[in-house]
Amino acid sequence: MSFVPCESSCCFPLQNLPYGVFSRRGSGEKKIGVAIGSHILDLSVISKAGLLPKSIGRTLEKETLNDFMALGRLRWLETRGVLMKLLSEDVPTLRDNNPLREAALIQQSDAEMHLPATIGDYTDFYLSREHATNCGTMLRGPQNALSPNWLSLPVAYHGRSSSIVVSGTPVRRPRGQVLTDARDTMSVALKPCSILDFELEMAAFVGTGNQLGESITTDEADNSIFGLVLLNDWSARDIQKWEMAPLGPFNSKNWASSISPWIVTLEALKPFRCPAPAQDPPVLSYLQAQDRHSYDIHLEAELVAEPSGGRATVTQSNLKHLYWTLPQMFAHHTVGGCNLRPGDMLGTGTISCNRDDRQGLGCLLERTWNGSQSIALSDGQHRTYLCDGDTVILRGYCQGDGFRVGFGECSGKVLPAVA
Amino acid sequence: MSFVPCESSCCFPLQNLPYGVFSRRGSGEKKIGVAIGSHILDLSVISKAGLLPKSIGRTLEKETLNDFMALGRLRWLETRGVLMKLLSEDVPTLRDNNPLREAALIQQSDAEMHLPATIGDYTDFYLSREHATNCGTMLRGPQNALSPNWLSLPVAYHGRSSSIVVSGTPVRRPRGQVLTDARDTMSVALKPCSILDFELEMAAFVGTGNQLGESITTDEADNSIFGLVLLNDWSARDIQKWEMAPLGPFNSKNWASSISPWIVTLEALKPFRCPAPAQDPPVLSYLQAQDRHSYDIHLEAELVAEPSGGRATVTQSNLKHLYWTLPQMFAHHTVGGCNLRPGDMLGTGTISCNRDDRQGLGCLLERTWNGSQSIALSDGQHRTYLCDGDTVILRGYCQGDGFRVGFGECSGKVLPAVA
Ligand SMILES: [Ca+2]
Ligand SMILES: [Ca+2]
Ligand SMILES: [Mg+2]
Ligand SMILES: [Mg+2]
Ligand code: NI
Repeated sequence: MSFVPCESSCCFPLQNLPYGVFSRRGSGEKKIGVAIGSHILDLSVISKAGLLPKSIGRTLEKETLNDFMALGRLRWLETRGVLMKLLSEDVPTLRDNNPLREAALIQQSDAEMHLPATIGDYTDFYLSREHATNCGTMLRGPQNALSPNWLSLPVAYHGRSSSIVVSGTPVRRPRGQVLTDARDTMSVALKPCSILDFELEMAAFVGTGNQLGESITTDEADNSIFGLVLLNDWSARDIQKWEMAPLGPFNSKNWASSISPWIVTLEALKPFRCPAPAQDPPVLSYLQAQDRHSYDIHLEAELVAEPSGGRATVTQSNLKHLYWTLPQMFAHHTVGGCNLRPGDMLGTGTISCNRDDRQGLGCLLERTWNGSQSIALSDGQHRTYLCDGDTVILRGYCQGDGFRVGFGECSGKVLPAVA
Repeated sequence: MSFVPCESSCCFPLQNLPYGVFSRRGSGEKKIGVAIGSHILDLSVISKAGLLPKSIGRTLEKETLNDFMALGRLRWLETRGVLMKLLSEDVPTLRDNNPLREAALIQQSDAEMHLPATIGDYTDFYLSREHATNCGTMLRGPQNALSPNWLSLPVAYHGRSSSIVVSGTPVRRPRGQVLTDARDTMSVALKPCSILDFELEMAAFVGTGNQLGESITTDEADNSIFGLVLLNDWSARDIQKWEMAPLGPFNSKNWASSISPWIVTLEALKPFRCPAPAQDPPVLSYLQAQDRHSYDIHLEAELVAEPSGGRATVTQSNLKHLYWTLPQMFAHHTVGGCNLRPGDMLGTGTISCNRDDRQGLGCLLERTWNGSQSIALSDGQHRTYLCDGDTVILRGYCQGDGFRVGFGECSGKVLPAVA
């Protein structure tokens, strides 16, 4: 237990210690911190006080986590050990040093969060069999739902890193070119997106990465992963439909992607490892692992309308259902020698699962079955796709015995398109 | 004319002054320079001597061009004016100051070149109608060669920025998952790429960019473009074929992309502006321009085999044939609010043109018509696709009256796949 109070439903107990970048409200100064209870421990203060391992240098006094990420797993573990002690109720160093404690601990409500790292490249995968099957069924019918390669490799595409924003940042409904008459490919118009969707995803931040020309194996991947966040891959379905063939999604996805601010480390997630779904047919050996595993992470998406305040839990899913695993993402991405750099981000793709009540589906396209089944909000409104003023809130946590290792929230409100 | 000698066939006369990042061979210190004749003017020396405009601060003393790119067109023009004077044969400031001149001018042969900027995001377009038609014909037959959206929008996908390398860097043949029996989607294997191709492209570096949620119009785009380079978008066709549907190229393209080291500014290219091909059917107004233009840039690709030294000019093409223009790339990319940042790179896609002798085709896939027509090298060897030890050299220049504004070379040698 920590001397910093933390209720059992709180995302950030001593067992978690996720990393993020914050500034004191009103100050522009970015600092690295770990979340603890409803507070943040300012690591620049702790570092300057000489309380961090010498081996990590001044990496935690920077404005992003990239340099710390690059140090590798041994240094992350060493630092985690030091921070756990420092925040423990049994250790007086910080607990009883009033000036230091007051300088180092700030309320989360007094802080503004920023992107935790400079994200050089962002890749989005398509790991959920349920999601791929549902999308494919709507597009091509149930017989050809999965593309021919889907069971053989974790399908992925390169995303846009410039437009990744941190939770709380409003997103503007994009304009884009759409087909206005499905029978006539000359009938196009530039219009505000009218089929606006979210996608409930998670993303892994690369820690150490690899050199160009080298690869990361499935068994090595856990050493490369710094940690995970929640990801909302906002999607403009009408734009996507028209632009997508032959080279994949582009303007439908590149106008905003939101992430939760706290990176939960793989170490904190370790107690929640669980088996991943078996793969049939068997995959090539570079995609097999000695210890094939996933993580038991409860996920949900909530929609809150404005100004009514009407709301609905749209999705309840779990990372553990993904057919392809995080190590498989890393192994496939690098098998041809592509280099991953510290701070790069790999998204899982929409995380859907099978439930009787459709609540397991991780985006509105699936959840409303292409807009045919609306969702009732608490105030009697209905939704198929997102309206201006709607806020989407993703949440995720691992349930321990009397505590949670959580991700907090990834939220974003939809602003009207530019006139 | 400059007091630094420059032959009429040289790429880098006073009219050019392209920017790059170099280090003196053996020193690791990165500096910004402009190429002049067979020399480089070290701008960190010129900046420290107080000879650059005050308005640009110390941006040319950095290790990348990003900060200078962000300053915008007025500052670029002001700096260009100052550098033209400084290097002119009529101005004594540098010409007659022996210690300064010797400190500031170094031989290109004594320098190592680096990436000119930190490339946050790289996008690759598909602007050539000839290329799209040829690829589509091989894939789907001549009736459906162009995808339905191709004439309505400049098709593009997000590429991988981590693996962009500068000319001269060897590239390693990738391994990847391929389909080994076209009739059986379960027949897959991990193998070294056996259909290795290059793509002759150019790329625009973003200068000032735009804020998230805003757009750049076709008429504003020229103010955003810092300059152009040559781009070889190495492509593993067998990997591409298997992975591409439904989300686009991924591992087939992300293992290396080579660029020429010198960014030729839009200002230097201005005398070579020319009309772009007319578009029929007409495009939406956000893709129209008051002054629709392209640039007359001669391009070629040469293949040199090792150890024989056998060689062949594989391609001779020209940027001016592209159906979609650079301003249209910028307008489409940002129409939904996607932000471009200083240093981002937008590739044109393979630049092919129609010629009777097939020499206008910008990649081996087209040039050999899917491997069916081989190319003879000077030593009697033949090639359909690239062999280990082959070097691909791209070259490009604008022909002036007695001078050339050139791009130099973009070269890369293929190393064998890892065992
Ligand atoms: Ca996605
Ligand atoms: Ca290309
Ligand atoms: Mg996105
Ligand atoms: Mg490439
Ligand atoms: Ni000299």
